[in-house]
Amino acid sequence: MNSINRLGIVGGIHGNELIGVYLVRKFQKYPHLINRNSFKSLALLGNPKAISARTRYIDVDLNRCFIGDNSPATKSSIYEELSYEELRAKEIQAILKSEDQEFVDVIIDLHTTTANMGICIIIGNIHPFLLSLAAYLNTINPLVKVYIHQQARNSGFLRSLCQLGFSIEVGAVAQGTLDGELFKQTENLVYAVLDYFEDFNKGEIPLIQNSFTVYRSSGVVNYPRNEDGDLAAMIHPQLQFRDYQPLNSGDPLFLTFEGKEICYEGESTVHPIFINEAAYYEKGVAMYLTQKELIHI
Amino acid sequence: MNSINRLGIVGGIHGNELIGVYLVRKFQKYPHLINRNSFKSLALLGNPKAISARTRYIDVDLNRCFIGDNSPATKSSIYEELSYEELRAKEIQAILKSEDQEFVDVIIDLHTTTANMGICIIIGNIHPFLLSLAAYLNTINPLVKVYIHQQARNSGFLRSLCQLGFSIEVGAVAQGTLDGELFKQTENLVYAVLDYFEDFNKGEIPLIQNSFTVYRSSGVVNYPRNEDGDLAAMIHPQLQFRDYQPLNSGDPLFLTFEGKEICYEGESTVHPIFINEAAYYEKGVAMYLTQKELIHI
Repeated sequence: MNSINRLGIVGGIHGNELIGVYLVRKFQKYPHLINRNSFKSLALLGNPKAISARTRYIDVDLNRCFIGDNSPATKSSIYEELSYEELRAKEIQAILKSEDQEFVDVIIDLHTTTANMGICIIIGNIHPFLLSLAAYLNTINPLVKVYIHQQARNSGFLRSLCQLGFSIEVGAVAQGTLDGELFKQTENLVYAVLDYFEDFNKGEIPLIQNSFTVYRSSGVVNYPRNEDGDLAAMIHPQLQFRDYQPLNSGDPLFLTFEGKEICYEGESTVHPIFINEAAYYEKGVAMYLTQKELIHI
Repeated sequence: MNSINRLGIVGGIHGNELIGVYLVRKFQKYPHLINRNSFKSLALLGNPKAISARTRYIDVDLNRCFIGDNSPATKSSIYEELSYEELRAKEIQAILKSEDQEFVDVIIDLHTTTANMGICIIIGNIHPFLLSLAAYLNTINPLVKVYIHQQARNSGFLRSLCQLGFSIEVGAVAQGTLDGELFKQTENLVYAVLDYFEDFNKGEIPLIQNSFTVYRSSGVVNYPRNEDGDLAAMIHPQLQFRDYQPLNSGDPLFLTFEGKEICYEGESTVHPIFINEAAYYEKGVAMYLTQKELIHI
Protein backbone atom coordinates (compact mmCIF):
# COMPACT_ATOMS: atom_id res chain seq x y z
CA MET A 1 0.00 0.00 0.00
CA ASN A 2 1.77 3.13 -1.23
CA SER A 3 -1.07 5.61 -1.13
CA ILE A 4 -4.83 5.87 -0.88
CA ASN A 5 -6.26 7.29 -4.09
CA ARG A 6 -9.98 6.55 -3.95
CA LEU A 7 -12.25 5.70 -1.12
CA GLY A 8 -15.89 4.58 -0.88
CA ILE A 9 -18.13 5.52 2.03
CA VAL A 10 -21.34 3.49 2.00
CA GLY A 11 -24.40 3.97 4.23
CA GLY A 12 -27.76 2.28 4.18
CA ILE A 13 -26.55 -1.16 3.13
CA HIS A 14 -29.32 -1.94 5.62
CA GLY A 15 -32.21 0.36 4.85
CA ASN A 16 -33.37 0.87 8.43
CA GLU A 17 -29.99 1.91 9.81
CA LEU A 18 -30.54 5.61 9.43
CA ILE A 19 -27.33 7.16 10.72
CA GLY A 20 -25.39 5.83 7.73
CA VAL A 21 -28.18 6.84 5.36
CA TYR A 22 -28.28 10.46 6.52
CA LEU A 23 -24.50 10.76 6.83
CA VAL A 24 -24.10 9.64 3.22
CA ARG A 25 -26.77 12.10 2.10
CA LYS A 26 -24.87 14.82 3.96
CA PHE A 27 -21.60 13.79 2.30
CA GLN A 28 -23.28 13.75 -1.11
CA LYS A 29 -24.58 17.27 -0.50
CA TYR A 30 -21.26 18.56 0.86
CA PRO A 31 -18.55 16.50 -0.87
CA HIS A 32 -15.77 18.75 0.43
CA LEU A 33 -16.39 17.16 3.83
CA ILE A 34 -15.01 13.81 2.64
CA ASN A 35 -12.51 14.78 -0.04
CA ARG A 36 -8.91 15.58 0.84
CA ASN A 37 -6.04 16.95 -1.20
CA SER A 38 -4.48 13.54 -1.73
CA PHE A 39 -7.56 11.40 -2.44
CA LYS A 40 -11.15 11.41 -3.63
CA SER A 41 -14.10 9.93 -1.75
CA LEU A 42 -17.34 8.58 -3.11
CA ALA A 43 -20.41 8.53 -0.83
CA LEU A 44 -22.99 5.95 -1.80
CA LEU A 45 -26.37 4.73 -0.52
CA GLY A 46 -26.36 0.95 -0.31
CA ASN A 47 -29.96 -0.19 -0.60
CA PRO A 48 -32.23 2.59 -1.93
CA LYS A 49 -35.34 0.39 -2.17
CA ALA A 50 -34.97 -0.80 1.42
CA ILE A 51 -34.31 2.76 2.59
CA SER A 52 -37.57 3.88 0.95
CA ALA A 53 -39.39 0.92 2.50
CA ARG A 54 -37.83 1.62 5.95
CA THR A 55 -36.70 -1.97 6.20
CA ARG A 56 -33.37 -3.81 6.44
CA TYR A 57 -33.70 -5.39 2.99
CA ILE A 58 -36.24 -6.23 0.32
CA ASP A 59 -35.44 -9.87 -0.56
CA VAL A 60 -32.20 -10.87 1.19
CA ASP A 61 -29.55 -9.25 3.37
CA LEU A 62 -27.50 -7.11 0.96
CA ASN A 63 -24.47 -7.40 3.23
CA ARG A 64 -24.19 -11.10 2.43
CA CYS A 65 -24.32 -10.58 -1.36
CA PHE A 66 -20.87 -9.17 -2.08
CA ILE A 67 -19.17 -12.16 -3.58
CA GLY A 68 -16.93 -10.21 -5.95
CA ASP A 69 -16.57 -11.39 -9.52
CA ASN A 70 -16.93 -15.02 -8.52
CA SER A 71 -20.60 -14.96 -9.30
CA PRO A 72 -21.48 -17.17 -12.24
CA ALA A 73 -24.29 -14.86 -13.29
CA THR A 74 -23.41 -12.88 -16.39
CA LYS A 75 -26.11 -13.74 -18.84
CA SER A 76 -29.29 -11.71 -18.67
CA SER A 77 -31.39 -14.85 -18.29
CA ILE A 78 -29.59 -15.61 -15.05
CA TYR A 79 -29.76 -11.97 -13.98
CA GLU A 80 -33.51 -12.19 -14.04
CA GLU A 81 -33.42 -14.83 -11.37
CA LEU A 82 -31.35 -12.75 -8.98
CA SER A 83 -32.90 -11.02 -6.01
CA TYR A 84 -32.98 -7.24 -5.79
CA GLU A 85 -30.04 -7.27 -3.39
CA GLU A 86 -27.95 -9.64 -5.51
CA LEU A 87 -28.38 -7.28 -8.43
CA ARG A 88 -27.73 -4.23 -6.27
CA ALA A 89 -24.51 -5.80 -4.96
CA LYS A 90 -23.28 -6.10 -8.55
CA GLU A 91 -24.24 -2.48 -9.21
CA ILE A 92 -22.36 -1.29 -6.15
CA GLN A 93 -19.29 -3.29 -7.13
CA ALA A 94 -19.39 -1.57 -10.51
CA ILE A 95 -19.92 1.89 -9.01
CA LEU A 96 -16.92 1.44 -6.75
CA LYS A 97 -14.68 1.04 -9.79
CA SER A 98 -13.15 4.07 -11.51
CA GLU A 99 -13.38 4.69 -15.25
CA ASP A 100 -10.24 2.63 -15.76
CA GLN A 101 -11.75 -0.23 -13.72
CA GLU A 102 -9.61 0.37 -10.65
CA PHE A 103 -11.49 -0.58 -7.49
CA VAL A 104 -11.52 1.85 -4.55
CA ASP A 105 -8.60 1.40 -2.15
CA VAL A 106 -10.76 1.67 0.95
CA ILE A 107 -14.39 0.92 1.83
CA ILE A 108 -15.98 2.40 4.94
CA ASP A 109 -19.32 0.71 5.55
CA LEU A 110 -21.59 2.56 8.01
CA HIS A 111 -23.93 0.54 10.23
CA THR A 112 -25.96 0.84 13.40
CA THR A 113 -27.05 -1.83 15.85
CA THR A 114 -29.63 -2.18 18.59
CA ALA A 115 -26.85 -3.64 20.76
CA ASN A 116 -24.88 -1.35 23.01
CA MET A 117 -21.78 -1.45 20.82
CA GLY A 118 -20.87 2.20 21.35
CA ILE A 119 -18.54 3.28 18.53
CA CYS A 120 -16.89 0.23 17.04
CA ILE A 121 -14.84 -0.52 13.96
CA ILE A 122 -15.10 -4.02 12.54
CA ILE A 123 -12.11 -5.43 10.72
CA GLY A 124 -12.60 -8.55 8.65
CA ASN A 125 -9.07 -8.76 7.39
CA ILE A 126 -6.05 -8.30 9.65
CA HIS A 127 -4.08 -6.01 7.40
CA PRO A 128 -1.26 -4.11 9.14
CA PHE A 129 -2.57 -0.85 7.72
CA LEU A 130 -6.03 -1.47 9.22
CA LEU A 131 -4.46 -2.34 12.56
CA SER A 132 -2.46 0.90 12.50
CA LEU A 133 -5.61 2.81 11.67
CA ALA A 134 -7.48 1.08 14.50
CA ALA A 135 -4.65 1.90 16.91
CA TYR A 136 -4.76 5.53 15.81
CA LEU A 137 -8.54 5.81 16.25
CA ASN A 138 -8.31 4.16 19.64
CA THR A 139 -5.49 6.57 20.60
CA ILE A 140 -7.43 9.71 19.80
CA ASN A 141 -10.64 8.32 21.29
CA PRO A 142 -10.22 5.43 23.76
CA LEU A 143 -13.97 4.79 23.57
CA VAL A 144 -13.56 3.48 20.01
CA LYS A 145 -13.74 -0.31 20.20
CA VAL A 146 -12.04 -2.63 17.71
CA TYR A 147 -13.71 -5.91 16.75
CA ILE A 148 -11.86 -8.43 14.60
CA HIS A 149 -14.15 -10.80 12.76
CA GLN A 150 -12.09 -12.49 10.07
CA GLN A 151 -13.80 -13.09 6.77
CA ALA A 152 -12.47 -14.43 3.54
CA ARG A 153 -12.23 -12.07 0.60
CA ASN A 154 -15.55 -11.80 -1.26
CA SER A 155 -17.33 -13.57 1.58
CA GLY A 156 -20.50 -11.61 1.05
CA PHE A 157 -19.75 -8.59 3.26
CA LEU A 158 -19.26 -5.28 1.50
CA ARG A 159 -16.11 -4.68 3.54
CA SER A 160 -14.63 -7.95 2.23
CA LEU A 161 -14.42 -6.53 -1.32
CA CYS A 162 -11.10 -4.82 -0.70
CA GLN A 163 -8.13 -5.28 1.57
CA LEU A 164 -8.78 -2.02 3.37
CA GLY A 165 -12.48 -2.52 3.90
CA PHE A 166 -14.00 -2.11 7.34
CA SER A 167 -17.30 -1.29 9.00
CA ILE A 168 -18.23 1.31 11.55
CA GLU A 169 -20.90 -0.08 13.85
CA VAL A 170 -22.61 2.21 16.36
CA GLY A 171 -25.29 1.62 18.96
CA ALA A 172 -27.48 1.20 20.79
CA VAL A 173 -29.91 2.76 18.35
CA ALA A 174 -33.30 1.38 17.37
CA GLN A 175 -33.84 0.41 13.76
CA GLY A 176 -35.64 3.13 11.85
CA THR A 177 -34.46 5.93 14.13
CA LEU A 178 -31.72 8.53 14.24
CA ASP A 179 -29.71 9.33 17.34
CA GLY A 180 -28.16 12.78 17.28
CA GLU A 181 -25.30 11.97 19.63
CA LEU A 182 -24.30 8.79 17.78
CA PHE A 183 -24.70 10.59 14.44
CA LYS A 184 -22.13 13.18 15.53
CA GLN A 185 -19.77 10.52 16.91
CA THR A 186 -19.97 8.48 13.71
CA GLU A 187 -19.37 11.57 11.59
CA ASN A 188 -16.34 12.54 13.67
CA LEU A 189 -14.94 9.03 13.40
CA VAL A 190 -15.24 9.16 9.60
CA TYR A 191 -13.35 12.48 9.56
CA ALA A 192 -10.63 11.00 11.80
CA VAL A 193 -10.24 8.10 9.37
CA LEU A 194 -10.00 10.48 6.41
CA ASP A 195 -7.44 12.64 8.19
CA TYR A 196 -5.37 9.57 8.94
CA PHE A 197 -5.34 8.61 5.25
CA GLU A 198 -4.40 12.15 4.28
CA ASP A 199 -1.49 12.10 6.74
CA PHE A 200 -0.44 8.68 5.48
CA ASN A 201 -0.45 9.88 1.87
CA LYS A 202 1.73 12.82 2.87
CA GLY A 203 4.16 10.50 4.62
CA GLU A 204 3.20 11.93 8.00
CA ILE A 205 2.20 8.90 10.00
CA PRO A 206 0.56 10.09 13.22
CA LEU A 207 1.92 9.12 16.59
CA ILE A 208 0.03 6.20 18.01
CA GLN A 209 0.22 3.95 21.00
CA ASN A 210 1.96 0.66 20.18
CA SER A 211 -0.59 -1.55 21.89
CA PHE A 212 -4.35 -1.48 22.09
CA THR A 213 -7.30 -3.70 22.98
CA VAL A 214 -9.20 -5.71 20.39
CA TYR A 215 -12.18 -8.04 20.68
CA ARG A 216 -11.62 -11.08 18.51
CA SER A 217 -14.61 -13.18 17.43
CA SER A 218 -14.55 -16.59 19.08
CA GLY A 219 -18.07 -17.93 18.73
CA VAL A 220 -21.75 -17.32 18.53
CA VAL A 221 -24.66 -18.04 20.88
CA ASN A 222 -28.15 -18.74 19.56
CA TYR A 223 -31.32 -18.17 21.55
CA PRO A 224 -32.80 -21.12 23.38
CA ARG A 225 -35.58 -22.44 21.17
CA ASN A 226 -38.64 -24.58 21.70
CA GLU A 227 -39.50 -27.64 19.61
CA ASP A 228 -41.03 -25.41 16.91
CA GLY A 229 -37.83 -23.45 16.60
CA ASP A 230 -39.35 -20.35 18.17
CA LEU A 231 -37.67 -18.33 20.91
CA ALA A 232 -37.89 -19.85 24.37
CA ALA A 233 -36.00 -17.11 26.20
CA MET A 234 -34.85 -13.51 26.13
CA ILE A 235 -31.48 -11.92 26.81
CA HIS A 236 -31.20 -11.80 30.60
CA PRO A 237 -31.82 -8.30 31.98
CA GLN A 238 -28.43 -8.43 33.72
CA LEU A 239 -26.73 -8.99 30.36
CA GLN A 240 -28.74 -6.49 28.30
CA PHE A 241 -26.61 -3.54 27.09
CA ARG A 242 -23.47 -5.03 28.69
CA ASP A 243 -21.55 -5.54 25.45
CA TYR A 244 -17.76 -5.95 25.85
CA GLN A 245 -18.10 -6.81 29.57
CA PRO A 246 -16.61 -10.06 30.87
CA LEU A 247 -18.98 -13.03 31.10
CA ASN A 248 -17.90 -15.84 33.40
CA SER A 249 -19.17 -19.33 34.00
CA GLY A 250 -22.38 -19.11 36.02
CA ASP A 251 -23.29 -15.59 34.89
CA PRO A 252 -26.89 -15.21 33.63
CA LEU A 253 -27.29 -15.33 29.87
CA PHE A 254 -31.01 -15.77 29.17
CA LEU A 255 -34.34 -15.53 30.95
CA THR A 256 -37.07 -17.90 29.77
CA PHE A 257 -40.60 -16.57 29.35
CA GLU A 258 -41.47 -18.65 32.42
CA GLY A 259 -38.87 -16.70 34.40
CA LYS A 260 -36.12 -19.33 34.60
CA GLU A 261 -32.50 -18.18 34.38
CA ILE A 262 -30.12 -19.80 31.91
CA CYS A 263 -26.47 -19.25 32.72
CA TYR A 264 -23.24 -19.26 30.77
CA GLU A 265 -21.48 -22.57 31.24
CA GLY A 266 -18.28 -22.04 29.30
CA GLU A 267 -15.02 -22.46 31.16
CA SER A 268 -13.23 -19.40 29.90
CA THR A 269 -14.18 -15.77 30.32
CA VAL A 270 -15.69 -14.28 27.17
CA HIS A 271 -16.78 -10.79 26.18
CA PRO A 272 -20.14 -10.88 24.36
CA ILE A 273 -21.00 -8.24 21.76
CA PHE A 274 -23.97 -7.61 19.48
CA ILE A 275 -26.15 -8.61 22.42
CA ASN A 276 -29.83 -8.46 21.37
CA GLU A 277 -29.25 -7.09 17.87
CA ALA A 278 -32.71 -7.01 16.24
CA ALA A 279 -31.55 -8.18 12.82
CA TYR A 280 -29.84 -11.25 14.23
CA TYR A 281 -32.97 -12.88 15.67
CA GLU A 282 -33.67 -14.41 12.27
CA LYS A 283 -30.03 -15.38 11.84
CA GLY A 284 -30.01 -17.38 15.07
CA VAL A 285 -27.58 -15.05 16.80
CA ALA A 286 -28.31 -13.83 20.33
CA MET A 287 -24.77 -12.48 20.67
CA TYR A 288 -21.25 -13.02 19.42
CA LEU A 289 -18.61 -14.13 21.87
CA THR A 290 -15.20 -12.53 21.72
CA GLN A 291 -11.81 -12.79 23.33
CA LYS A 292 -10.42 -9.54 24.66
CA GLU A 293 -6.77 -9.19 23.67
CA LEU A 294 -4.01 -6.64 23.85
CA ILE A 295 -2.42 -6.29 20.42
CA HIS A 296 1.13 -4.97 19.98
CA ILE A 297 2.00 -3.36 16.69
CA MET B 1 -70.59 -1.09 34.43
CA ASN B 2 -71.78 -3.74 36.84
CA SER B 3 -69.16 -6.39 36.28
CA ILE B 4 -66.41 -7.47 33.93
CA ASN B 5 -67.30 -10.77 32.29
CA ARG B 6 -64.96 -11.10 29.35
CA LEU B 7 -61.70 -9.46 28.55
CA GLY B 8 -59.42 -9.45 25.49
CA ILE B 9 -55.65 -9.15 25.74
CA VAL B 10 -54.10 -8.43 22.36
CA GLY B 11 -50.40 -8.38 21.49
CA GLY B 12 -48.65 -7.99 18.18
CA ILE B 13 -51.10 -5.57 16.61
CA HIS B 14 -47.75 -4.31 15.37
CA GLY B 15 -45.73 -7.32 14.29
CA ASN B 16 -42.33 -6.01 15.37
CA GLU B 17 -43.34 -5.14 18.94
CA LEU B 18 -42.23 -8.40 20.47
CA ILE B 19 -43.05 -8.02 24.15
CA GLY B 20 -46.78 -8.15 23.41
CA VAL B 21 -46.30 -11.03 20.98
CA TYR B 22 -44.45 -13.23 23.46
CA LEU B 23 -46.67 -12.26 26.39
CA VAL B 24 -49.74 -13.31 24.42
CA ARG B 25 -48.07 -16.59 23.45
CA LYS B 26 -47.31 -17.16 27.13
CA PHE B 27 -50.93 -16.41 28.09
CA GLN B 28 -52.19 -18.74 25.36
CA LYS B 29 -49.95 -21.49 26.71
CA TYR B 30 -50.86 -20.86 30.37
CA PRO B 31 -54.43 -19.48 30.31
CA HIS B 32 -54.75 -19.77 34.10
CA LEU B 33 -52.41 -16.78 34.30
CA ILE B 34 -55.05 -14.46 32.86
CA ASN B 35 -58.31 -16.05 33.94
CA ARG B 36 -59.86 -15.19 37.29
CA ASN B 37 -62.82 -16.64 39.17
CA SER B 38 -65.15 -13.86 38.10
CA PHE B 39 -64.18 -13.43 34.43
CA LYS B 40 -62.62 -15.06 31.40
CA SER B 41 -59.77 -13.63 29.36
CA LEU B 42 -58.92 -14.21 25.71
CA ALA B 43 -55.32 -13.72 24.57
CA LEU B 44 -54.97 -12.93 20.89
CA LEU B 45 -52.17 -12.18 18.43
CA GLY B 46 -53.05 -9.11 16.40
CA ASN B 47 -51.17 -9.34 13.13
CA PRO B 48 -49.83 -12.87 12.51
CA LYS B 49 -48.53 -12.11 9.01
CA ALA B 50 -46.60 -9.06 10.19
CA ILE B 51 -45.26 -11.03 13.18
CA SER B 52 -43.93 -13.68 10.79
CA ALA B 53 -42.44 -11.00 8.57
CA ARG B 54 -40.91 -9.19 11.59
CA THR B 55 -42.45 -5.95 10.47
CA ARG B 56 -44.98 -3.47 11.85
CA TYR B 57 -47.60 -4.24 9.21
CA ILE B 58 -47.99 -5.77 5.77
CA ASP B 59 -50.13 -3.21 3.91
CA VAL B 60 -51.33 -0.57 6.37
CA ASP B 61 -51.13 0.10 10.11
CA LEU B 62 -53.60 -2.37 11.66
CA ASN B 63 -54.12 -0.05 14.62
CA ARG B 64 -55.84 2.47 12.36
CA CYS B 65 -58.27 -0.11 10.88
CA PHE B 66 -60.68 -0.69 13.78
CA ILE B 67 -63.66 1.26 12.63
CA GLY B 68 -66.26 -0.99 14.21
CA ASP B 69 -69.31 -2.00 12.23
CA ASN B 70 -69.34 1.31 10.39
CA SER B 71 -67.42 -0.18 7.55
CA PRO B 72 -69.48 -0.39 4.35
CA ALA B 73 -67.72 -3.57 3.29
CA THR B 74 -69.94 -6.59 3.63
CA LYS B 75 -70.07 -8.03 0.15
CA SER B 76 -67.29 -10.36 -0.83
CA SER B 77 -66.51 -8.28 -3.91
CA ILE B 78 -65.69 -5.37 -1.65
CA TYR B 79 -63.83 -7.61 0.76
CA GLU B 80 -61.44 -8.53 -2.00
CA GLU B 81 -60.35 -4.90 -2.27
CA LEU B 82 -59.51 -4.60 1.40
CA SER B 83 -55.93 -4.70 2.60
CA TYR B 84 -54.70 -7.54 4.76
CA GLU B 85 -54.96 -5.38 7.85
CA GLU B 86 -58.49 -4.16 7.06
CA LEU B 87 -59.61 -7.78 6.77
CA ARG B 88 -57.70 -8.77 9.90
CA ALA B 89 -59.35 -5.93 11.84
CA LYS B 90 -62.74 -7.40 10.94
CA GLU B 91 -61.59 -10.85 12.00
CA ILE B 92 -60.37 -9.54 15.34
CA GLN B 93 -63.65 -7.71 15.93
CA ALA B 94 -65.47 -10.99 15.30
CA ILE B 95 -63.14 -12.99 17.54
CA LEU B 96 -63.67 -10.54 20.39
CA LYS B 97 -67.38 -11.36 20.37
CA SER B 98 -68.75 -14.26 22.36
CA GLU B 99 -71.04 -16.91 20.89
CA ASP B 100 -74.04 -14.74 21.70
CA GLN B 101 -72.40 -11.79 19.94
CA GLU B 102 -71.53 -9.94 23.16
CA PHE B 103 -68.37 -7.93 22.72
CA VAL B 104 -65.62 -8.18 25.36
CA ASP B 105 -66.00 -5.69 28.20
CA VAL B 106 -62.35 -4.76 28.24
CA ILE B 107 -59.53 -4.64 25.69
CA ILE B 108 -55.90 -4.49 26.80
CA ASP B 109 -53.72 -3.73 23.80
CA LEU B 110 -49.99 -4.39 24.36
CA HIS B 111 -47.44 -2.20 22.59
CA THR B 112 -43.81 -1.21 22.76
CA THR B 113 -42.09 1.96 21.61
CA THR B 114 -38.57 3.09 20.84
CA ALA B 115 -39.30 6.18 22.93
CA ASN B 116 -38.42 6.20 26.61
CA MET B 117 -42.03 5.87 27.73
CA GLY B 118 -41.29 3.57 30.65
CA ILE B 119 -44.50 1.76 31.62
CA CYS B 120 -47.46 3.76 30.39
CA ILE B 121 -51.15 3.18 30.00
CA ILE B 122 -52.92 5.05 27.23
CA ILE B 123 -56.56 5.94 27.70
CA GLY B 124 -58.53 7.09 24.67
CA ASN B 125 -61.81 7.48 26.46
CA ILE B 126 -62.12 9.22 29.82
CA HIS B 127 -64.37 6.68 31.48
CA PRO B 128 -64.53 6.94 35.30
CA PHE B 129 -63.75 3.24 35.58
CA LEU B 130 -60.59 3.63 33.49
CA LEU B 131 -59.54 6.61 35.59
CA SER B 132 -60.02 4.57 38.77
CA LEU B 133 -58.00 1.75 37.27
CA ALA B 134 -55.25 4.20 36.27
CA ALA B 135 -55.24 5.67 39.78
CA TYR B 136 -54.94 2.18 41.24
CA LEU B 137 -52.05 1.20 38.96
CA ASN B 138 -50.28 4.45 39.72
CA THR B 139 -50.83 3.85 43.44
CA ILE B 140 -49.25 0.42 43.51
CA ASN B 141 -46.45 1.49 41.17
CA PRO B 142 -45.81 5.24 40.95
CA LEU B 143 -43.62 4.63 37.90
CA VAL B 144 -46.73 3.77 35.87
CA LYS B 145 -47.49 6.80 33.70
CA VAL B 146 -50.97 7.68 32.45
CA TYR B 147 -51.43 9.26 29.03
CA ILE B 148 -54.83 10.52 27.93
CA HIS B 149 -55.23 10.73 24.18
CA GLN B 150 -58.92 11.09 23.47
CA GLN B 151 -60.27 9.25 20.46
CA ALA B 152 -63.75 8.85 19.17
CA ARG B 153 -65.31 5.41 19.37
CA ASN B 154 -64.35 3.26 16.37
CA SER B 155 -61.67 5.76 15.42
CA GLY B 156 -59.42 3.07 14.06
CA PHE B 157 -57.56 2.17 17.25
CA LEU B 158 -58.20 -1.29 18.67
CA ARG B 159 -58.73 0.23 22.12
CA SER B 160 -61.49 2.45 20.74
CA LEU B 161 -63.71 -0.59 20.08
CA CYS B 162 -65.03 -0.69 23.64
CA GLN B 163 -65.54 1.75 26.46
CA LEU B 164 -62.97 0.03 28.65
CA GLY B 165 -60.29 -0.27 26.02
CA PHE B 166 -56.77 0.92 26.73
CA SER B 167 -53.21 0.33 25.64
CA ILE B 168 -50.10 -0.53 27.58
CA GLU B 169 -47.10 1.13 25.98
CA VAL B 170 -43.60 0.29 27.21
CA GLY B 171 -40.16 1.47 26.17
CA ALA B 172 -37.55 2.25 25.22
CA VAL B 173 -37.22 -1.01 23.32
CA ALA B 174 -36.01 -1.38 19.74
CA GLN B 175 -38.43 -2.80 17.20
CA GLY B 176 -37.85 -6.48 16.62
CA THR B 177 -36.28 -7.07 20.03
CA LEU B 178 -37.32 -8.31 23.43
CA ASP B 179 -36.27 -6.65 26.67
CA GLY B 180 -36.41 -8.98 29.66
CA GLU B 181 -36.90 -6.26 32.25
CA LEU B 182 -39.70 -4.53 30.34
CA PHE B 183 -41.28 -7.92 29.57
CA LYS B 184 -41.55 -8.64 33.31
CA GLN B 185 -42.85 -5.16 34.08
CA THR B 186 -45.50 -5.40 31.36
CA GLU B 187 -46.54 -8.84 32.56
CA ASN B 188 -46.83 -7.62 36.14
CA LEU B 189 -48.91 -4.65 35.04
CA VAL B 190 -51.33 -6.97 33.21
CA TYR B 191 -51.72 -9.07 36.36
CA ALA B 192 -52.34 -5.93 38.43
CA VAL B 193 -55.09 -4.92 35.98
CA LEU B 194 -56.67 -8.37 36.15
CA ASP B 195 -56.54 -8.38 39.95
CA TYR B 196 -58.23 -5.00 40.01
CA PHE B 197 -61.08 -6.31 37.86
CA GLU B 198 -61.41 -9.38 40.05
CA ASP B 199 -61.65 -7.18 43.15
CA PHE B 200 -64.15 -4.92 41.42
CA ASN B 201 -66.32 -7.88 40.46
CA LYS B 202 -66.28 -9.04 44.08
CA GLY B 203 -67.28 -5.58 45.26
CA GLU B 204 -63.92 -5.06 46.88
CA ILE B 205 -62.68 -1.85 45.40
CA PRO B 206 -59.04 -1.42 46.37
CA LEU B 207 -57.83 1.59 48.28
CA ILE B 208 -56.41 4.18 45.94
CA GLN B 209 -55.05 7.70 46.16
CA ASN B 210 -57.66 10.24 45.15
CA SER B 211 -55.37 12.25 42.92
CA PHE B 212 -52.72 11.30 40.40
CA THR B 213 -50.76 12.76 37.51
CA VAL B 214 -51.83 12.37 33.92
CA TYR B 215 -50.28 13.55 30.66
CA ARG B 216 -52.96 14.87 28.37
CA SER B 217 -52.32 15.09 24.62
CA SER B 218 -52.11 18.71 23.49
CA GLY B 219 -50.38 18.60 20.14
CA VAL B 220 -47.91 17.03 17.82
CA VAL B 221 -44.54 18.13 16.45
CA ASN B 222 -43.32 17.00 13.03
CA TYR B 223 -39.67 16.81 12.04
CA PRO B 224 -38.21 19.75 10.16
CA ARG B 225 -38.27 18.77 6.49
CA ASN B 226 -36.45 19.93 3.38
CA GLU B 227 -38.14 20.93 0.14
CA ASP B 228 -38.42 17.26 -0.89
CA GLY B 229 -40.21 16.40 2.33
CA ASP B 230 -37.30 14.45 3.70
CA LEU B 231 -35.95 14.85 7.23
CA ALA B 232 -33.81 17.93 7.77
CA ALA B 233 -33.04 17.32 11.45
CA MET B 234 -32.89 14.77 14.25
CA ILE B 235 -34.22 14.82 17.78
CA HIS B 236 -31.74 16.93 19.74
CA PRO B 237 -29.42 14.79 21.90
CA GLN B 238 -30.50 16.77 24.96
CA LEU B 239 -34.12 15.79 24.33
CA GLN B 240 -33.54 12.12 23.41
CA PHE B 241 -35.01 9.72 26.00
CA ARG B 242 -36.39 12.65 28.06
CA ASP B 243 -40.06 11.72 27.66
CA TYR B 244 -42.42 13.30 30.25
CA GLN B 245 -39.82 15.96 31.20
CA PRO B 246 -40.77 19.65 31.00
CA LEU B 247 -39.83 21.45 27.79
CA ASN B 248 -39.72 25.23 28.00
CA SER B 249 -39.40 27.95 25.41
CA GLY B 250 -35.81 28.06 24.19
CA ASP B 251 -35.04 24.42 25.04
CA PRO B 252 -33.41 22.45 22.19
CA LEU B 253 -35.80 20.34 20.15
CA PHE B 254 -33.92 19.28 17.00
CA LEU B 255 -30.41 19.20 15.62
CA THR B 256 -30.07 19.64 11.86
CA PHE B 257 -27.65 17.42 9.97
CA GLU B 258 -25.48 20.52 9.57
CA GLY B 259 -25.31 20.83 13.36
CA LYS B 260 -27.71 23.74 13.89
CA GLU B 261 -29.97 23.67 16.95
CA ILE B 262 -33.71 24.22 16.59
CA CYS B 263 -35.40 25.23 19.82
CA TYR B 264 -38.92 25.00 21.18
CA GLU B 265 -40.66 28.33 20.76
CA GLY B 266 -44.01 27.69 22.41
CA GLU B 267 -44.98 29.95 25.28
CA SER B 268 -46.23 27.33 27.70
CA THR B 269 -44.31 24.47 29.25
CA VAL B 270 -45.11 21.13 27.61
CA HIS B 271 -44.13 17.53 28.37
CA PRO B 272 -43.17 15.69 25.17
CA ILE B 273 -43.72 11.94 24.89
CA PHE B 274 -43.18 9.37 22.13
CA ILE B 275 -39.92 11.21 21.38
CA ASN B 276 -38.18 9.50 18.43
CA GLU B 277 -40.65 6.62 18.04
CA ALA B 278 -39.44 4.72 14.96
CA ALA B 279 -42.91 4.02 13.56
CA TYR B 280 -43.90 7.68 13.67
CA TYR B 281 -41.26 8.91 11.22
CA GLU B 282 -43.57 8.02 8.35
CA LYS B 283 -46.57 9.53 10.17
CA GLY B 284 -44.85 12.90 10.49
CA VAL B 285 -44.63 12.72 14.27
CA ALA B 286 -41.36 13.53 16.00
CA MET B 287 -43.11 13.63 19.38
CA TYR B 288 -46.46 14.29 20.97
CA LEU B 289 -46.81 17.24 23.29
CA THR B 290 -48.76 16.82 26.51
CA GLN B 291 -49.97 18.86 29.43
CA LYS B 292 -49.09 17.42 32.82
CA GLU B 293 -52.12 17.58 35.10
CA LEU B 294 -53.13 16.43 38.54
CA ILE B 295 -56.48 14.64 38.31
CA HIS B 296 -58.79 14.32 41.34
CA ILE B 297 -61.22 11.43 41.35
